[in-house]
Amino acid sequence: MTLHWMPAQPGDALSDVDTPALILDLDRFETNLARMMDAARDAGVRVRPHAKSHKSLQIAHRQIDAGAVGLCCQKVGEAEVFLAGGIKDVLITNEIVGERKMRRLAQLAGMFAPARVGVCIDDASILRQLAVICDEEGAYVDVYIEVDVGQNRAGVQDAAAAVELARETITYPSLTLMGLQAYAGGAQHRRGVPERKAAAMLAAQRAREVRNALRAEGLPCEIVTGGGTGTFMYEAWSDVYTEIQPGSFALMDYDYARNESDPDVPQFEHALFVLATVMSLRGDRATLDAGLKAFSTDSGPAQPAFEGWRVHGVSDEHTVLTRVDDEGPSIYLGAKALLIPGHCDPTVNLHDWIVAVRKNRVEDVWCVDARGAVF
Amino acid sequence: MTLHWMPAQPGDALSDVDTPALILDLDRFETNLARMMDAARDAGVRVRPHAKSHKSLQIAHRQIDAGAVGLCCQKVGEAEVFLAGGIKDVLITNEIVGERKMRRLAQLAGMFAPARVGVCIDDASILRQLAVICDEEGAYVDVYIEVDVGQNRAGVQDAAAAVELARETITYPSLTLMGLQAYAGGAQHRRGVPERKAAAMLAAQRAREVRNALRAEGLPCEIVTGGGTGTFMYEAWSDVYTEIQPGSFALMDYDYARNESDPDVPQFEHALFVLATVMSLRGDRATLDAGLKAFSTDSGPAQPAFEGWRVHGVSDEHTVLTRVDDEGPSIYLGAKALLIPGHCDPTVNLHDWIVAVRKNRVEDVWCVDARGAVF
Repeated sequence: MTLHWMPAQPGDALSDVDTPALILDLDRFETNLARMMDAARDAGVRVRPHAKSHKSLQIAHRQIDAGAVGLCCQKVGEAEVFLAGGIKDVLITNEIVGERKMRRLAQLAGMFAPARVGVCIDDASILRQLAVICDEEGAYVDVYIEVDVGQNRAGVQDAAAAVELARETITYPSLTLMGLQAYAGGAQHRRGVPERKAAAMLAAQRAREVRNALRAEGLPCEIVTGGGTGTFMYEAWSDVYTEIQPGSFALMDYDYARNESDPDVPQFEHALFVLATVMSLRGDRATLDAGLKAFSTDSGPAQPAFEGWRVHGVSDEHTVLTRVDDEGPSIYLGAKALLIPGHCDPTVNLHDWIVAVRKNRVEDVWCVDARGAVF
Repeated sequence: MTLHWMPAQPGDALSDVDTPALILDLDRFETNLARMMDAARDAGVRVRPHAKSHKSLQIAHRQIDAGAVGLCCQKVGEAEVFLAGGIKDVLITNEIVGERKMRRLAQLAGMFAPARVGVCIDDASILRQLAVICDEEGAYVDVYIEVDVGQNRAGVQDAAAAVELARETITYPSLTLMGLQAYAGGAQHRRGVPERKAAAMLAAQRAREVRNALRAEGLPCEIVTGGGTGTFMYEAWSDVYTEIQPGSFALMDYDYARNESDPDVPQFEHALFVLATVMSLRGDRATLDAGLKAFSTDSGPAQPAFEGWRVHGVSDEHTVLTRVDDEGPSIYLGAKALLIPGHCDPTVNLHDWIVAVRKNRVEDVWCVDARGAVF
């Protein structure tokens, strides 16, 4: 472990931060958070930000303080970090399969009660196993039936299947049926506004059908939760979702910035960067000390946050930039360069520390508490 | 931190390991290590395995015990982990730029002496700064002049520049000029044997010119080091390299397996896997609980280590497999699936633990000691 090595101390200038380091611009982060909470309040929906993006208790508590009702996460290990860190309502927006994982989930719910712990279900055999394990552990867990609203990955396919699972869920005293998980992941990065909106509306329509079927049977469906940074306003306006789950909005990344803006929807600013150092320089070619182990490339490489240079190539520990025109800064050996990650979630997951910066001065250094919580 | 959660205990069956988990097949790992050491011994070159691939002290010590002369790493933070873990000779195959990093490097060299610490240099201003800092810290550091042998990323471009740096290096009492770093990174994954061999031979020719220029000036050049898993045998046969630096050979990955085999060169077996669980199932579509945060996708997604299924898509925490034919295993909800990573180095860097398995039984669980050591 090298956790004792921190890239910066409060008070350091941004230019003195050791690299590669994850940088959070606090002014922009706070602006993003306020925009999201204001928009949700105006639309009358709850916000349960997705913590798989930031994995940080410092960010989580700021989101709760701003009015979020709880957090989402994807893994039992993440839930553990946030429950142990004082978050009182955590929803795992994912199916949890396997006896060890399910028992750990139940143990966490027991240990941290009265904090609420929720999980998604799309299969009756897993539902039964969860009920048995919760009974054994003396734990109570919230159940959200996941509806496949276009992602084609998990979730029940139709209202009849949801009704069947809901009917069974309410027979188990250890389980509380909260409602539906209905996340349209594939809709988030459709570039054009009309396509993105249409995909979200289609998801809302599927969620509405399932909700109505549950209601028609007298089954509880208090919460319909879903939506991400690309579509949250359409879910909020849908009159079916009661809760939205955006994650990336707080940090932003290059991939989300490629989406066409909808003038009716709040926009978010890049608050997350990777700081790198020029470690070799040759004419119009600068090699940085940050590569695949400092930012993910699944949505393209990190991009310079300045003009005049573009990414030529990325390897494990290096990024090579080449000059494309005379705009932007001159670069020298030892110069620091800010990059905008292509995809914030897997980039944050590579780092132990978030260097929180305001006006080019380090204000604090935060732990990425749930980094690597893959289980 | 979730380090207290381990995916397995010694004695567990592979099928009981919590997922996603990094799996090392010990029989294959030991075979790979023996093949490499035998081949290098026959060719008369030293082996300094690259530890950026495995980041693990358990693997490092097995490599030293098998005859490796020391280790390579890429970062000062990695060097710290391996020096603190008892490795006596660590070469950072990279330029270290920035006062904080260079001072930390010098402090490590001082603290762990008589262990040797080496670093690459391609610029006179950095060389001077390093000499000053080593003097201030009372430390001795080995210097390898990096030669650009085709990577076009770092390194001096010609023999004259190398001679100039070498002349200056030997004037500093705190620095020991060991020789040349000459790694042809771009050659490693040229698919055809003739092209790959030609690229390695071209690199060797450039290294030879520089070595000869140093010798002609009476400058020391005891070590010429370089070569990777794709080309190591060509460097070993070149009569210019005295040391090879392969890393991936110990673990292997899907990207290296795509290289055409040279019948004259030892081959390596897949020893590294990611174990995942089927968490949602729908006909011929199985969703696994491992995604971008459990394996890197820069060289393509991880691939099933079994027949009949292919990767349909990868997202942050999920991989969707679809059935392509009737070969291979039937898959059920809760089934475990072994995947072969596309690129071992950044995949290992995502995990805290390596589950060391022999004949489907967990023999030990090893820490990825230098995981996240990006500084």
